[in-house]
Formats: sequence, structure tokens, C-alpha cells
Amino acid sequence: MRWPKGLPGLCYGGDYNPEQWPAEVWPTDVELMRRARVNLVTVGVFAWSRLEPQPGRYDFDWLDRVLDLLHDGGIRVALATPTASPPPWFSLRHPDALPVTADGVRLSHGSRDTYCASAPAYRTAAREIAAALADRYRDHPALALWHVHNEYGSTCHCEHVAVAFRSWLRARYGDLDRLNEAWTGSFWSQHYSGWEQIRPPRATRYLGNPSQLLDFRRFVSDELLEAYVEQRDLLRAATPDVPVTTNYVLGGWVPVDHARWSAEVDLVAIDHYPAEAGPGAEEQTGFAADLARSWARHGQRTGRAGRTASGATNRDTSGGPAWLLMESAPNLILTPGRMHAKEPGRMTRHSLAHVARGSRGAMFFQWRASRGGAEVFHSALLPHAGPDSRAFREAVSLGALLDRLSEVDAGTVRASVAVAWDVSSWWAMQATVLPSAQLDYLAEVSAAHRALGRAGHPVDFVTDGDDLFGYALLVLPALYLVSDRYASRIRDYVAAGGHLLVSYFSGIADEHARVRVGGYPGALRDLLGIRVEEFHPLDPATRLPLSDGSTGRLWAETVRLTGATPSVSYLGGLLDGQPALTRHGYGDGVAWYLSTRLDDDPYRDLLARLAETAGAAPTCPAAPAGVEAVRRSTAETSWLFLLNHTDSPQAVPVSGVDLLTGAHVDIVRLPAGGCAVLRED
Amino acid sequence: MRWPKGLPGLCYGGDYNPEQWPAEVWPTDVELMRRARVNLVTVGVFAWSRLEPQPGRYDFDWLDRVLDLLHDGGIRVALATPTASPPPWFSLRHPDALPVTADGVRLSHGSRDTYCASAPAYRTAAREIAAALADRYRDHPALALWHVHNEYGSTCHCEHVAVAFRSWLRARYGDLDRLNEAWTGSFWSQHYSGWEQIRPPRATRYLGNPSQLLDFRRFVSDELLEAYVEQRDLLRAATPDVPVTTNYVLGGWVPVDHARWSAEVDLVAIDHYPAEAGPGAEEQTGFAADLARSWARHGQRTGRAGRTASGATNRDTSGGPAWLLMESAPNLILTPGRMHAKEPGRMTRHSLAHVARGSRGAMFFQWRASRGGAEVFHSALLPHAGPDSRAFREAVSLGALLDRLSEVDAGTVRASVAVAWDVSSWWAMQATVLPSAQLDYLAEVSAAHRALGRAGHPVDFVTDGDDLFGYALLVLPALYLVSDRYASRIRDYVAAGGHLLVSYFSGIADEHARVRVGGYPGALRDLLGIRVEEFHPLDPATRLPLSDGSTGRLWAETVRLTGATPSVSYLGGLLDGQPALTRHGYGDGVAWYLSTRLDDDPYRDLLARLAETAGAAPTCPAAPAGVEAVRRSTAETSWLFLLNHTDSPQAVPVSGVDLLTGAHVDIVRLPAGGCAVLRED
Amino acid sequence: MRWPKGLPGLCYGGDYNPEQWPAEVWPTDVELMRRARVNLVTVGVFAWSRLEPQPGRYDFDWLDRVLDLLHDGGIRVALATPTASPPPWFSLRHPDALPVTADGVRLSHGSRDTYCASAPAYRTAAREIAAALADRYRDHPALALWHVHNEYGSTCHCEHVAVAFRSWLRARYGDLDRLNEAWTGSFWSQHYSGWEQIRPPRATRYLGNPSQLLDFRRFVSDELLEAYVEQRDLLRAATPDVPVTTNYVLGGWVPVDHARWSAEVDLVAIDHYPAEAGPGAEEQTGFAADLARSWARHGQRTGRAGRTASGATNRDTSGGPAWLLMESAPNLILTPGRMHAKEPGRMTRHSLAHVARGSRGAMFFQWRASRGGAEVFHSALLPHAGPDSRAFREAVSLGALLDRLSEVDAGTVRASVAVAWDVSSWWAMQATVLPSAQLDYLAEVSAAHRALGRAGHPVDFVTDGDDLFGYALLVLPALYLVSDRYASRIRDYVAAGGHLLVSYFSGIADEHARVRVGGYPGALRDLLGIRVEEFHPLDPATRLPLSDGSTGRLWAETVRLTGATPSVSYLGGLLDGQPALTRHGYGDGVAWYLSTRLDDDPYRDLLARLAETAGAAPTCPAAPAGVEAVRRSTAETSWLFLLNHTDSPQAVPVSGVDLLTGAHVDIVRLPAGGCAVLRED
Repeated sequence: MRWPKGLPGLCYGGDYNPEQWPAEVWPTDVELMRRARVNLVTVGVFAWSRLEPQPGRYDFDWLDRVLDLLHDGGIRVALATPTASPPPWFSLRHPDALPVTADGVRLSHGSRDTYCASAPAYRTAAREIAAALADRYRDHPALALWHVHNEYGSTCHCEHVAVAFRSWLRARYGDLDRLNEAWTGSFWSQHYSGWEQIRPPRATRYLGNPSQLLDFRRFVSDELLEAYVEQRDLLRAATPDVPVTTNYVLGGWVPVDHARWSAEVDLVAIDHYPAEAGPGAEEQTGFAADLARSWARHGQRTGRAGRTASGATNRDTSGGPAWLLMESAPNLILTPGRMHAKEPGRMTRHSLAHVARGSRGAMFFQWRASRGGAEVFHSALLPHAGPDSRAFREAVSLGALLDRLSEVDAGTVRASVAVAWDVSSWWAMQATVLPSAQLDYLAEVSAAHRALGRAGHPVDFVTDGDDLFGYALLVLPALYLVSDRYASRIRDYVAAGGHLLVSYFSGIADEHARVRVGGYPGALRDLLGIRVEEFHPLDPATRLPLSDGSTGRLWAETVRLTGATPSVSYLGGLLDGQPALTRHGYGDGVAWYLSTRLDDDPYRDLLARLAETAGAAPTCPAAPAGVEAVRRSTAETSWLFLLNHTDSPQAVPVSGVDLLTGAHVDIVRLPAGGCAVLRED
Repeated sequence: MRWPKGLPGLCYGGDYNPEQWPAEVWPTDVELMRRARVNLVTVGVFAWSRLEPQPGRYDFDWLDRVLDLLHDGGIRVALATPTASPPPWFSLRHPDALPVTADGVRLSHGSRDTYCASAPAYRTAAREIAAALADRYRDHPALALWHVHNEYGSTCHCEHVAVAFRSWLRARYGDLDRLNEAWTGSFWSQHYSGWEQIRPPRATRYLGNPSQLLDFRRFVSDELLEAYVEQRDLLRAATPDVPVTTNYVLGGWVPVDHARWSAEVDLVAIDHYPAEAGPGAEEQTGFAADLARSWARHGQRTGRAGRTASGATNRDTSGGPAWLLMESAPNLILTPGRMHAKEPGRMTRHSLAHVARGSRGAMFFQWRASRGGAEVFHSALLPHAGPDSRAFREAVSLGALLDRLSEVDAGTVRASVAVAWDVSSWWAMQATVLPSAQLDYLAEVSAAHRALGRAGHPVDFVTDGDDLFGYALLVLPALYLVSDRYASRIRDYVAAGGHLLVSYFSGIADEHARVRVGGYPGALRDLLGIRVEEFHPLDPATRLPLSDGSTGRLWAETVRLTGATPSVSYLGGLLDGQPALTRHGYGDGVAWYLSTRLDDDPYRDLLARLAETAGAAPTCPAAPAGVEAVRRSTAETSWLFLLNHTDSPQAVPVSGVDLLTGAHVDIVRLPAGGCAVLRED
Repeated sequence: MRWPKGLPGLCYGGDYNPEQWPAEVWPTDVELMRRARVNLVTVGVFAWSRLEPQPGRYDFDWLDRVLDLLHDGGIRVALATPTASPPPWFSLRHPDALPVTADGVRLSHGSRDTYCASAPAYRTAAREIAAALADRYRDHPALALWHVHNEYGSTCHCEHVAVAFRSWLRARYGDLDRLNEAWTGSFWSQHYSGWEQIRPPRATRYLGNPSQLLDFRRFVSDELLEAYVEQRDLLRAATPDVPVTTNYVLGGWVPVDHARWSAEVDLVAIDHYPAEAGPGAEEQTGFAADLARSWARHGQRTGRAGRTASGATNRDTSGGPAWLLMESAPNLILTPGRMHAKEPGRMTRHSLAHVARGSRGAMFFQWRASRGGAEVFHSALLPHAGPDSRAFREAVSLGALLDRLSEVDAGTVRASVAVAWDVSSWWAMQATVLPSAQLDYLAEVSAAHRALGRAGHPVDFVTDGDDLFGYALLVLPALYLVSDRYASRIRDYVAAGGHLLVSYFSGIADEHARVRVGGYPGALRDLLGIRVEEFHPLDPATRLPLSDGSTGRLWAETVRLTGATPSVSYLGGLLDGQPALTRHGYGDGVAWYLSTRLDDDPYRDLLARLAETAGAAPTCPAAPAGVEAVRRSTAETSWLFLLNHTDSPQAVPVSGVDLLTGAHVDIVRLPAGGCAVLRED
């Protein structure tokens, strides 16, 4: 997908909730936004109870005034449909539309997201309020983007859901025998003899069925997507030239297949909140941004082309896949039990880390810190302390900085290393009693991404269906589920000359989470030239010495060679002399298998070596450790982002025009925590 | 409130449950009580199923015999209404009176406190059994005190509660706009357009509304108080000369505003169980006792005067506010996972620590250890081992000791340092996602009380509405909620010459838990001459060096001076050179602000310094560390309690008459773990 | 009970689930079973939904083929009734037969064991499917054993259960006064005035009633037993010569009194899964096997004799009590969060540890690893990797080994040391707030068993009702509940010359969990010549020095001597000089009391000393540490099992014929991890 024309090249702003403040405050808000060079705000996310205080009685006057004020101030509006939180009257009127937990607890109004997406009453009400907004604001000049709903991700287990789940399963499996086969219905007497016997996974006596749990996640994703598409279609019909999207929330609990959704949005929008206060925050930031860009690219490939009447969207070919950091926290990293205030400059570096990876700007939750409600200590561009504050001054300075960077929106990130991302593997691993509780899909993929990042390589994520042939190196970390078709495409990639690294716990199961028998990793045995006989999950404290001086941890395996050659072996213990890392020539390419978890440094070194052999080049070998280097480029021009995450000054010997100062430099000198963007020579 | 005439000057005894034992045991009980000099026992707390075994069929015979036996033995009776545990037949008959959790689970009979205080059937039944008891025993000569219910504190979330909550909110807010404003209804689409839409806080999708949660706690407190007052009024009508009270249970889960309740009782009664086995047990004891005395004083000021017909109560002006330690554990400190047997002498020291702070005696749960039911290993004056035991011998010796101390009941504690206690701040902090999970209201107040205690100062607690002008020094630890009116009273106090120390996280929000914007601590900025821009919650392990050699932990802030002068600064790191402790002259007084948490020793030193400057004198500077010194006094006489909490002998150079020996001494020599009470010269 | 004739002398095999695999796999299975010398498989455990896919419509064809194939391969069949998991249609049709948790959540189909054993519809359906199986396969030549249900242990709290519980209580107590007395109904107003007021223990406000909780566990055990007996009786009626059993699952949550059940089975069958990866796995194995043998012996004494028509069962007098390890994991130890693959040889040693203690073989869960469902990573004799694997090769070698050991089935274990096992004490301790959360019945009994095992002694467990007089030494660890009758039998045992060691927290309560007053341990005070005044639960980190150089931990007591003499004393602290271990001559015997927990080594030394004094001899004093020695014997012959649990070779100077090689040896040389079975000279 391409960047929609009506939006700023680099957006800057955030969620704006004027309904929480008296009208006297609004002009001040617009004035301060202008001071900070804010050019886009998201309005109305949770405003349903104010927009429709009684069933069918709308109150748009206040919103009219807000949009007029913003327009007069030159600020564009992402107008939200408020469907993530129905008003109290709705819940009272439609108790069957309140969600039910797996334990059978029907939740009560009193927070957000308290609805069942499968309840007909909810879906009707959601369409109605969206249509009313479209009708009211279709011609408003401030309207630049439709922001449907907020952070889709709620699961319900009620009877409406049971009906919808059965219908989804019928569509997927056609007849019950195929479902029983896919779900291994013979295990624990779960063979269904009628569709009506099927239930969503609810509280039960003991372990649930992993295939059922996996399909339920997939169903929820599709069900929520259907709810989104209903709104998108009516908005698009009203305003063919206004792009439509929804903001993705990330997290292990989220039942949304973002790659698949990306075919249905006009731009990918993510909310990103790192969960570590240390350097992990920066690595999570890069990880999320690379995911978002990769989802956008996936959506671009798989989305229906030419779907709008006017053709206004999706035509511009510059700047790479269209995505935007829609929410982030200006001055807050929320770690378990603690809100960490960002050090001066860190908000700016995080914002640039996204922009460097293709984000069309940096948006925040939120503009003005709430004074009431459940999130009073969440941060904001304009903090409780008001504009006379370090935090607001940094917001102003970030606005000015983004202003000077506008040309980079033409460039895109080009990666020759790819890491597989597979939400089905993630969900299946969550649904299964694994040999080790330390085995965590996200941790495995993050470790691979982090190692490549530390080796200086730009990384794309690939999902089943993406083109693999363009990459020099492909890494499959814990790709638990692999379909026959996907396995075959991976084989083709290697046969055609690709380099591949597969880690332990990949290729174990088919797309229904059924283990492939005959030795692990069933789907990839021949490609890798090995057969894994046994798993050896390790105690968290255990370190297994390896023949190359590094150590394995978390996991080990009994690997039998059936064509591969050993590269690194285990030393001592039960696995003494057995292969830990193997290499297998296959067609014109090479397939490596790693049967244990390496520490960060040796993992980085291994991936650096494999990437080099495969012919992939790092972004900026001259960048010292702790300085993140990311490049956006067009065919003609390239921009290098340099972010100094260390607390001492750093110098990088690269030459070009420093966009922040306009000066040409041969060495970039970065203050502690500082950053630079270079139009390279 | 004043000490009721019909009660012993110093009460000694505890809960007595004759219904758990065969009648043959009762005379032995009375004989052993006499041996221990027990003079008051609480009877009938959980006896409802024995008093009314079938609906409306009463069985008082056994209780008649028990009260007669006690009276014959010269033992007074606190007669309990048994309404904390309805009988099984009641729950069967009125399933709608069983409580419902926030998750919607209707609880089942099988423990205690399994009722909904808002259920009409429960309230009716409670009044009936109380009236039946009043009718039966109004003239019994043993009756000295009505003990209504037991440890009010149960919360329910059922529909009866919903109705009552709405009615309470209508009374509080009048119209819905004011409620929506107070609760920030615009946040997350929670704007109500009809009263019937409001629910108690129940299980919901995500975070609840802090203002709603806070008001619900306040409602529950008032609702339980109403249930208490119903019983009190009918008991008072039957026996105008018999005082009425209920025993307070303490704890973070308790939805009771004890200061407010204290206007409605004839004496404050607390149950106190420390939760640490080490020296924390002694500090928690002093904390609870100071709270109880302060609640009684608050009740005395705010209670309706002259409410009884006969005037028998509340007329005696000696001895300070009327309060009593109603329950404590003779030989048990319950720490998580372990019952710690008290070391010899410790029960005595704990009892005297209460009496020293104004308690009119020491009462225990319970007289005789249960042999069945849920609390068989709870301790008792008469343990399972029987009277031939160390534990019972210490009970006998404590009885004798209290006997010799009777004159102290004329004295009261006089403090010139006050610490603010505010249950709304506590509840609001529990209801809010705070910047740090380590931020704990009770811990903050305890730290201040502990520091003052270690500095040797007697402490009063003050609640909004109390007179502040009598104190030399006032400390506000984490006073999160401050109303405009309260803030103004605090300002007046300082302007008139008072000394004030405010700690971080005070004055943040108004009485509806809405943050005051413009810089923290909103309500007290001008008084303190500072503006706090940002919070910096710290990792539990972090220590920030301060310019005076101490260290800050848990919390730090970016403090801007707007009139105050810095006293201590942060050293190094992001806050290098910025103020940690500030001083601001205001009117005739001084207002200090502390933006971090000090360790115990420097906190003690700081408070000692401030108290000295303010003109407050410690109780007994000669007392060595580990020897607690507390004074009760009248205008003419003073009594000094000295409790040696160390395990070595200690000497204190003070002179007076030792009440335990009757001898005049110039140096008090305390054995390890021993104590003395001195009528001072 | 005696070993049934129709079964192999030593069984080898496991659960076989052909319904999870296509029919083409079945002949391969039989061929591989033959290769491994498998002689018994359990079929049909979870096959209900395949056997009765629609209500009343049976599909036995597939099972016919499986049984024919197995019979043709010479493999015997334990045919399971599939009643542990009703089919989905059953749950849909009978929602009232779905179980309800204590919180009131009605569980949903989707796992296993999702039924209420008290629901009439369930009981009817279970009888019907069992009868249909009996009818179909009564004459099948492969049928060797009826395996009723699977791992009885599910608890429900619904109204069906309430009715059944009341009926059980009426039968137990006759009238309500006795129940109120037993349950201490006067505590917390729980006095019942009508049977209909009684409920199962459900979610309630606070602590439940321990006596009610204990009786509920007993009721559940009896209710499940009744469900078993219904099936057993109809199977026995159909096939009088085929033995019937059910497999016991072990664990603290299991509401089954296995000793009591053992009177109703034709052989005791246990499932055993150790929960520690280290040496604890071996000690848990020995513990479980000794329990199983002891239950079988108890069942033999208490079961109804001559109950079958044909007399085929229970007549063979050789080989000791009939029991069988019915399930174990071939290649897996499941510890919290990790599946530990067994080291080579460990499966064999675990199997022999059971056979050495009397098991008539070694059975496994399961034959072939599942490819789908909730337990895909559970282990199997035939792993995912297939027959070309170390794991399967060890399975083949174990089959060959067992084949060579067949003669040992005539021998039985003879122990002269007994440890008390009392499920009521366990349940009561779980139901009670104990003085220390570290006080754990299973841990106490395990510690005694472990100490005796390390001292080289074979151990029987005894349950109330077993003959005590045959033992030289009896150990009562934490025997919390002791009835008057049991106490009297213990006294008789000592008076007649027995040696007894009682540990702390024994004899505290009567059979209703009511504490015996007058000093602990109430029921055994006179026998022990002591009176315990107070408990002193210790912090986990505390170590109390004792006069013999060892240390006490976890627990200490104030012990007063009333006839006993002190043997070891506490040193220092509050208990300085007071007795820790006492000795009391009583009649012709000696009764010791230990008031603290010793570390493993001194506990082993103490028990070794007491056993020696009592005249008990260890199995094989020549066995070095880490080599487990267990003897089975008949009057004429004895077999010594030697299991080397160390990772170095070991030599044991004993002579006899090595059954594995057929050679006579004077010294047994064991490789690391190896084992030997010797027919002793």
C-alpha cells in the first residue's frame, strides 16, 4: 500500500480528547499544538457516550466546534469511530452484548472494550454510530483519515460467539470429519458428531485442545476483522478519497493476525509501548517498527487493488509500504510495577527509530494528560505540569525536527535478511503444554532480530505468502507450525541459492498444530539433512559448553545427521560430541540448523557470519556499539539515521548533509543521547 | 467521647464462646477468669445459630446461665449482637441476602460474614435478633456494654447494593451532571445519561474508574454504618445507660472510614493483630493505638452531644478520648505462612503499649482456645494445654499487673506532633494505577510514624476536620487527595506559625481523585513554594545519593523552586543538583517538602530536627534505644510507661513511684523484655 | 489380594490409543509391540466418543479389529471403560451433568473428566457404555483385565452433589446433633437445624470449616467408589473370571482414600509420575511403590473374600499383594515448567524399582506418542521419532529384561519397619490453617520414608486397621488425626514390645479434626510420657542447634516431661535445655518423640539407630551409597534387585545367580546407571 495523499508526509501529533476538558481549554490546545508543529490529531476514540448520550439522540455540536478549531489551526484530523467503548445505556439495554469470560463471568460496564463483537446488537449499533459520523463529517475539511475503533483485540466466549465460531468452522472445514481429523477429536473423547456440540474454549476440567484453541484465535481475528470491514466499507462509501485504518495493539494476548488484516487497511497503524526501561526499549522499538513495515508490505501484496472509486489512495509509489506509528508514550516506559520517565532525548530517539524504519511520522498517546479516569498517570505531550516543562519543550523540539526531515518520506528501508514471523506458531505454542515453559515464541523471534540488529543488519519480517527470493538470508526462529505448502516454498528458496538458518522447535507441527511424526523438524528434515530424536529442555541455570567456545542454554536436542555436516558440537554430558549446529548444502543454497539457544553475543556473531557468507551487507559498519544506524533510500538518494543510545558522545565517520543543521559533514558527532539524519553523498 | 461509667477503669478479658463448650466447663471458666482477674468478657459474637436455631424460635436459656455465672463471678459482660454471621437457615431462606463478589460469584454459607448488608431481609433479621437480645437482657446486671456485630467490613456487589449505591450517589451529587463531572465520565465513554445505568464496580474488561471505586468504598462505609446505627439506636432505646460500640478491624481491604464512624460509638474499640514477628510488631502496635486514640478524639469532636436520655455516657471528662483494645492475640503473631508464638513478656509489653496510649485496658481474642472450627490454632488466654502452662501464667500475671495500674486511667497522651491520616487518600491510591507499585499509602504513613516514634515523640493522627492549631509540627505523608477546603486549613495552620512537612505524592488530586493540573502538588504548590514537573519512580534497588550524605529511594522528582529554598539536593544522575528537600517560609510558619523516601535513620533525624525547631519535646530523652517510653498525664499527675523491647537489661534514669512495686526509684532498672510504669515526681 | 491368573506374571506394555491413528498403522503397532515383548496393553480409555458417536448408536467395529489384531499378536488386553470422558453429545444433552467448581463455574466440554459423578444422567450413561462393552467383549480371547474408568479424582460442587453429600452425612451421623458436634457447629454460627441447610463447601467469605471440608473429601471418595463399584459389579457379572481394577492417580488434590478403595479392586493399579528430575525421582518412585504394595495388602485384609463366582481371582497365594504399575512415563519427568528427558537406563531403573517392590510388571503411558490433542509432548515407548530411536531401543531392551525376570513374581517384600499413612490426616491438614504453611503432611511422611530408605530398610505403610504387631519399629510422622481406637491400638503395639517414633504434629486432633485439649499430642500424651505446651513454628531459614550436634528446623515445641526422659535437647534461644527428642518406656516397648524436623542425614542416623535397637535389619549393608537394594522373597528363595543410580560403576559383594546373564557371581559389578537382579544363594 502507498501513502495516502491527504495526509502529511510526516505526521506528528496524537490522541486528542477535548471531551474531557471544558470548551475554554480547546483554543489553548490548538495554539499549543501549533507551537509544537502538530499536524495530525486523533479525535473521538472514546467519545461514544458524548456523541450519542441517549439511544439515537446525537450530540455533534461540541465535535463540530473542535474540528472547526483544529481546521482553523491547520491541524488535520484522524477521526475515530468510538466503537471500542459503547455507552452505559447500550450495556444496560443489551446485556447480551456484554462479553463473557472463559469462566462464564459476564463482564460489567465500567472500563473500556466491554462488548461482544459477535453480538448483533453491538454490530448494529457500531455501524449506526459510524454511519452517523460519516454522514456528519464527510465533507469536513479537517478530515484526513478514518481511525476505525481502537486496538481491536477483545475476546468473548458467549453464545453469540459460539454460533459465529461454528459458522466459521463450517466455512473452514466443510464437514465435521475434517474438523475431527484436524483437531484430533479422538484424543480425550472429543470427537464431535454434530456441529451444535462445538463450543468456544471455555473453562474446563484440565488442559484444552490446542487445535481448538488455535482455531478459536484465528476465528476471533477474522470476526473482529469482519467488524472492522463493515465500518470501513460504509466509511469508504461515504468518503471515497479518505483513507481508512485502525490502530493495531501488540501483545501476546491479542487475537489479531496483523499481517492478514493489513490487506484491508489503507495504511498500517501500530501502537507501540516498549516494556523494558533499559536498552530493551530500543530493541523492542526496532522490532515493532520492522514488523509494521513488513505487515504493510504484506498487505500491499495481498490487498485487493483498485478498491476505491476515486483511486486517490494506493497510487503513490514512493516511500515504501504505508505505515505509521499511531500511538506511543511521550514520557513513559511502563515496566511491571513502575512507570519509568524517559530520559531527555529518548522520546526523540524512539520517534526517529520508527521514522527511520519507514513510519510516516510519530504519533502519541496522548496530547494532554487526563485529569480523571483510569489512566491519569499515563504520559502526554502536554503533561499535568503544563507547557512550562521539559517534557513539552522536548515535544516542541521534536516537532521542529520532524519538520526538517520531511524529504525522507520518499525513502524506504531495504533489507536483504529476513526473519519469519508467524502468528499461528505463536498462538499454537501458547495453546500447547510445551516441553519447557521457557520456550517462548516472541522471545525466540526477538533474540534473532536483536542478534541481527546488533550485527548491523536491516531486517524484514516475512509471513507465509511473502516473496522469499529477494533475501540473501532467511532465519526461522521457533517456527513451530509449517504447512506443507510453506515448507515447499522454503525448500524452493534454498534450492534457488538462498541461505537459511532454522532454530530448534521449528517445523514441528502442521497448520492444525498436529505434530509431524518420524523425527523433528518434520517439515524440514530433508532440507536440513537431520533428524531430531529427542528434546532436552534445560534448567534456566544450565549452560552447555559448545565446541566453538560458546555455550548453549534453555534447550538442547539429540540430532542425528542424515546428510548435514556438523559445524559446532556439544561438549561433555549426555550429548558429548553430538551436533549443536549443522550445515546442509541443498540445491544452490545452504540450510543451517541450530539446536540450542546461544547467548546474545555468539548469536550475533553466528548471524553476522551467515549474513556475510550469504552476501548481505550491514547498514553502517562504521557505527560504534550503541549507535543505531538505519537507512531509508530511493533509487537515487539515501538517508542515514544515526541514534546515539549511549550516554557519552560518539563520532561516526560518514559524510553527507546533516538535515538538522543543513551542513555537510564528513564525521557525524553525536552528543550523548543525540541523533542525526544524513542525506548521504 | 468519655469513658462510660459502667465499665471497669481498665478492662481485662476477651471473647468468650461458651456455646462451643459443654455447660460443665462454664464454672471452671469463671473460676479461671477470677484467678486471672478478668473483669470483662465479650459474649455471643457468633452465637446467632444457637440463639435462634429456627426462624423466630429463640433459645436464650444457655445464655441466661452463662450471664448469671459471670455475674456471680463478678465479671462484666460486653454482650454482642451476633449479626456478623446469620444462621444457615437464614441463608437458605434468603438466597438474595448472600453476598456476590465483583466477579458475580454468589458466596455460600460455610464461613463467617456471609451476608449482604444491603439486603432488606438481612437488615430486618439483624434488627430482630438485636431487639430480642435487648429485650431479654436489658436488665441483666452483668450487662456493661453492647458490642454490636463484629468487625464490620464485608463488601457485596449484588443488585441490592446497586440500588443502595445509586441512592447514595443521588444524595451525594444531586444531579447526574455533577456525578459525570466528578467521575470524569468522558473518559472511556463512561458518561451516564440515567441513574439506572450506574453499577457497583464489578468485573470489567480492564481498569476500572478510580473515582467510582473511591465512591463505592465511601458508600460501603456509610451503608455499613447505617446498619450499625439501626442496631445502636434500638439498643440505646432499650438501655439508655449502657454504652454501645462495635469493634473495628484494621486492614487495607476494610471499607470503613473509622474516623467518621467514631462519631457514632460510645467508645472506640479496635482489634489489633500485628503482622510482623520482629520489631515491626511493636511499631505496628504503637501505630494502631495512636490511630485509635485519634479516632476517639475525632469522634468526640464530631459526634452528636447529649444523645442519650439519661446522660450516663460521655460526661466523665478524665482520661482522654474513650477507646479500648477490644481484641488482640495473647500468644500469636500471624505472619505470612507462620504463626509466631510470642516470647515470654511480649504479650504484657504489647498490652501496656496500648494502655500507655490511652486504651482503657487490654482485651483478647479469645478466652479459651477453640477445639473445632476454622481457627483452632488461633491463640487464647487459656491455651489448648490448659491452665498449667506458661501462657496462662502470663495471663494471670498480666491481670495482676493491670490491677496495680488502675490509677492511670485518669491520664491521657498529649502530643505536639501530628501526622495526617486520610482514608480517602488510601482508597484512591488503591483504586488508581500509580506511577509505582511500591507507592503504598500505609507504608508512607507508617514510615513517618515510625521515624517520629524512634525520635521519641508522641504522635497524634489528624483527619480532615480536626483542629490543627494545637500542634507544633504537622506531617503529611502521601496525602494524595486534598480538597480545597482542607488545603486552605493547612495553609492557615502554617500561616499561623505551624511547621509542616509534606512528602511526595501529596496534594496531587482533589476529593474526587481528579488530578490537579499545573504542576504537583497542585493543592499545596503555593504553600510549599515549589512546582513538581515530573515523577521519577525508582527501581526497588536504586539508591540516589543526597547532598547531606543520606540517600533517596523508591521515588524522586523534578522539583522547580517557586519561592522555596533548597535544603538537600540530589547528587549525580539526571537530577544532579536539583532539590530533594525544600524549605519555604509561609506567614509565621515554615513548610518543608521532601521529594524522595529516606531510610529510617535519616528520616528519624530529619523529623527530630524539624520537631525540635518547632518546639516539640520528646517523651523521655533518657530512654535508651529499644526502650519505648510513653506518657499519660492529667493536669496534676503523669505516668511514664517504659517498655524494654530489647533482650538485655536496661536502665533509665527517671524518678518516681514504680506502680508495680510501690517503691520510689531514681533509676528504673528493666530486665530484658520487662516493663515499668512510673508515677513521675 | 492375589495376582489374577489370566494376567502375565510380569506385565509389560501401556496405554494404546488406536483410535487416534489410521487403521493402516495398527498392524505396525502390533509388530513393534512384539519386537518389544509387550504383553499387555490398555485399550479404550478415552474412546467413548468413538464407541458411541451418537446416543445409543455404538460403533465397535474398529475396536473388534484392534482386539483381534492384538490377540493374533499374542498381546493381552486391559479393556477400559471410557467413562472418564463422556462424548460431546452427552454434555450437550445433559448440561446438569457438567461439573461445577467451588466458585460456581459450570465447566464446559473441551478437556477430559468433565462430568459430575453424582449426576444421575452420568451414572446411567456410564453403566450403559460399560454394559455394552461387557456384552460385546465378554468372550473375546484377548480380554485379560477390566480397567474401569481412568484416574478417579474429579470433584464437583453442584446441587446433585449437595443431595448426595447430605445423604452420605445422614448415613454417617444419623442425627444432626452429632453432626453439629463433630463439625463444631457453634463456631461462627454454623449450627444446622435442618439437613437441607447443608451445602458442599463452596466459595464463601473467608475460611471454611475444616471438619466439613474433611468430610466432603471422604464423601467424594465414597461417591466415586460407588460409581466404580457399579461398573465393577456389572463387569464381574458378565465375566466372573476376568479381574477388575481401576488405576489410581496420586497427588494432594485427589479426593480418593486409596487404602479403602483397595478392598474393592482385584489388583491395585497405580499411575506414577515423579515430580523431581534429580534423585528425588528415585525416592518418589520407591515411596509410591511401597504405598501401592501396602494398599494392596490392606485391601487383601479388608476386602470381601470369595466375592467372585468362579473363584478365579484372589486364590493364588504367591507373590504378595497384587499390584501393578499401570502408568508411568517412559522418557519424561515433568517438573514445574520443564519436561526432563530421562537419561539412558533411567526408565529401566524406575521400572525395576517398582518390580522390586512387588509390582507385577511395568506399564506405561503410552505406547505411541500422540500427534494431536493436549498431550503431544507427553512421552511414549514409541516416540514421535519412531522405532529408530534410543528411546524405542531402550523399550525393546526393557521388554527383554523383564522376560528374564519372570521368576521374581513369586516373591514379596518383607519389611519390619512401618510408617503410618493416613489420608484423613493429610486432608485435615490441607483443610486447616496450620501454625506453619511449611507443615506439609506428604513432606513429613516422605522425609521419614526417605530417611529409612537411605538407612537401607524396606518399609511398609500402615493404615488404621492394619496389623501392627509384626513390625519391629513403627514411625508416625505428622499423624495429625488419631481416633481413640487407633490410639489404643498404637498403645497396645508398644506395650507388647514395639518400638515407636512419633514426630511433632501427631495425635493433635480426633477423627473429626477437633483438637484434643489438655496438651499435645492429646491422643498419645500418656504413651509418650510428655505434654507439649506450645508450638514454635520456625522461619524457613532458622536452624536450632541440638545437643547431639545436629540442628532442628521448621518446627520446635515446648515439651514438658511427664515420664519420658530427654535424649536430645535444644541449645540456646528460648528453648535452651528443653527436650527435643524424648524416650519413654511403655510396657515392653519404647516410645520416642521428636519435636523438631531433622535434616536428612541425622534423621537417617536416628532411624537407623532406632531400627537397629528394635531388631530390624537393612536389606543389603554392602550396597554403597546411591545403589538401591530391594529384596523380594518367598519362604525358599530371595531375589535381590540392585539399582545403580550413580553415574559411576559400582561393585556390591553379594553372591548368587545374575538373572540377566544367567551367571553365578560373588561380586555384582554395576555399570553407571545399570542394574542387576540376583537370585541369592
